[in-house]
Amino acid sequence: MLPRIVPVLIPEQKENLVVVLAGARNPLNIGAAARAMSNFGFRALRIVTEFPLPVTEAKSAVDAAEVMQQATVHTSFAEAIADCGLIYGTTAVGDRRLEHPVEPLPQAAAHVRNALAGLQRAAIVFGSEKTGMTNEQMSYCSSLLTIPMEVHGTSMNLGQSVAVCLWEVAREGASAGEVAEDESLADSAAVDRFEGVLREGLTATGYEAKFPANCGEEMTRRLVRRLRLNRKDAEIWTGIWRQVLWKLRQ
Amino acid sequence: MLPRIVPVLIPEQKENLVVVLAGARNPLNIGAAARAMSNFGFRALRIVTEFPLPVTEAKSAVDAAEVMQQATVHTSFAEAIADCGLIYGTTAVGDRRLEHPVEPLPQAAAHVRNALAGLQRAAIVFGSEKTGMTNEQMSYCSSLLTIPMEVHGTSMNLGQSVAVCLWEVAREGASAGEVAEDESLADSAAVDRFEGVLREGLTATGYEAKFPANCGEEMTRRLVRRLRLNRKDAEIWTGIWRQVLWKLRQ
Repeated sequence: MLPRIVPVLIPEQKENLVVVLAGARNPLNIGAAARAMSNFGFRALRIVTEFPLPVTEAKSAVDAAEVMQQATVHTSFAEAIADCGLIYGTTAVGDRRLEHPVEPLPQAAAHVRNALAGLQRAAIVFGSEKTGMTNEQMSYCSSLLTIPMEVHGTSMNLGQSVAVCLWEVAREGASAGEVAEDESLADSAAVDRFEGVLREGLTATGYEAKFPANCGEEMTRRLVRRLRLNRKDAEIWTGIWRQVLWKLRQ
Repeated sequence: MLPRIVPVLIPEQKENLVVVLAGARNPLNIGAAARAMSNFGFRALRIVTEFPLPVTEAKSAVDAAEVMQQATVHTSFAEAIADCGLIYGTTAVGDRRLEHPVEPLPQAAAHVRNALAGLQRAAIVFGSEKTGMTNEQMSYCSSLLTIPMEVHGTSMNLGQSVAVCLWEVAREGASAGEVAEDESLADSAAVDRFEGVLREGLTATGYEAKFPANCGEEMTRRLVRRLRLNRKDAEIWTGIWRQVLWKLRQ
């Protein structure tokens, strides 16, 4: 088991992840893979193919221009991964006999992150759209990973599996930052002000007389606190109820 | 607060996740979304479109036949999410002004998992490929989520973002962090009823005339949706406002 504390990857570390497309033929898929790399901050794309590749088409992939420009094309798989240490092959684990242990993605991604954090070069290899990785290609890998799915052995779209794998490698850093939902919550005094004017309203409209069970002090307080009002909304709701009271007094 | 242990979803629970494609035009993208759903064990796809949809093309999506067969097509967004409680809109958080809190995917997915584990219906909404969700669509959501990316505000391919979101909901043993408890949320139709009676109240009390800026249709909808009312509270607040109206008419 890996420790729970997972390094948040900085750009220099992300440079060390190599995505290898071994046998992909469809330029749309190659473009989609490049776009996902770009989305999650990875740069090094290597394409293994024996055929002339329509890289030009793929180069037009939205948001992936930089990744596609820097992509290298290799005829030899061995050459494409020659400078990598940790090498994960991907497989849907169909009926073919695997001689490598197959790790579920979260575990594999944690290993990849650790390698990258130590500035080691790691690779994740994706096979062709139709047949996946060949046995020969797998034999070069240090490990295999699979994306656990509902039905074991189902195959995923290439661009989607690249996106899911890269998200999993990048996500720890991602979840740390970003918005704190509660940051702008109204303070208790502001909520009290709303509660006060609401209470007056419940009495003035006759709601309290009709539904006394809903209007006990704690009942009302809980009703209001459950709204988890932010600062601005607490003001708006207070204003709305002041208006109710004003109108009733006309 | 809930414990760190996150429920592993069983198929019955997964049935309660609704994926809404609101405005997607490209059948390849719709097919890719359906395929990702199928891969991760989700079934309920709803497509919102004003145009005749080339669903037939999309139906040929590899491995997604069952999901596509059962997909429903709606012209009204409100109708498509009417029976859902927790409703997440997705956004790349560009420069548009968001009035809902935006949660990073891991946090949002944990909320969704918790709702599903309690057999509540939850929705994740994806906007059109070109422009994302409209402000009007967002105003119906109880929350927004974003997939944190390297460059804030970059947009992701639709099929890939569906895959990443569903993977995040389905992945086991994910450390969800601390997640606030969601009681059983009122469904969208119940919230609409409250909104309707509130709107009448805002007019009848003269609040709308005084603060028109707070009373635009989408403003009011967002104000109400941000409350994330549970079932019982939605009923109570609707009753309170009915009483306000009744009293004003005396």
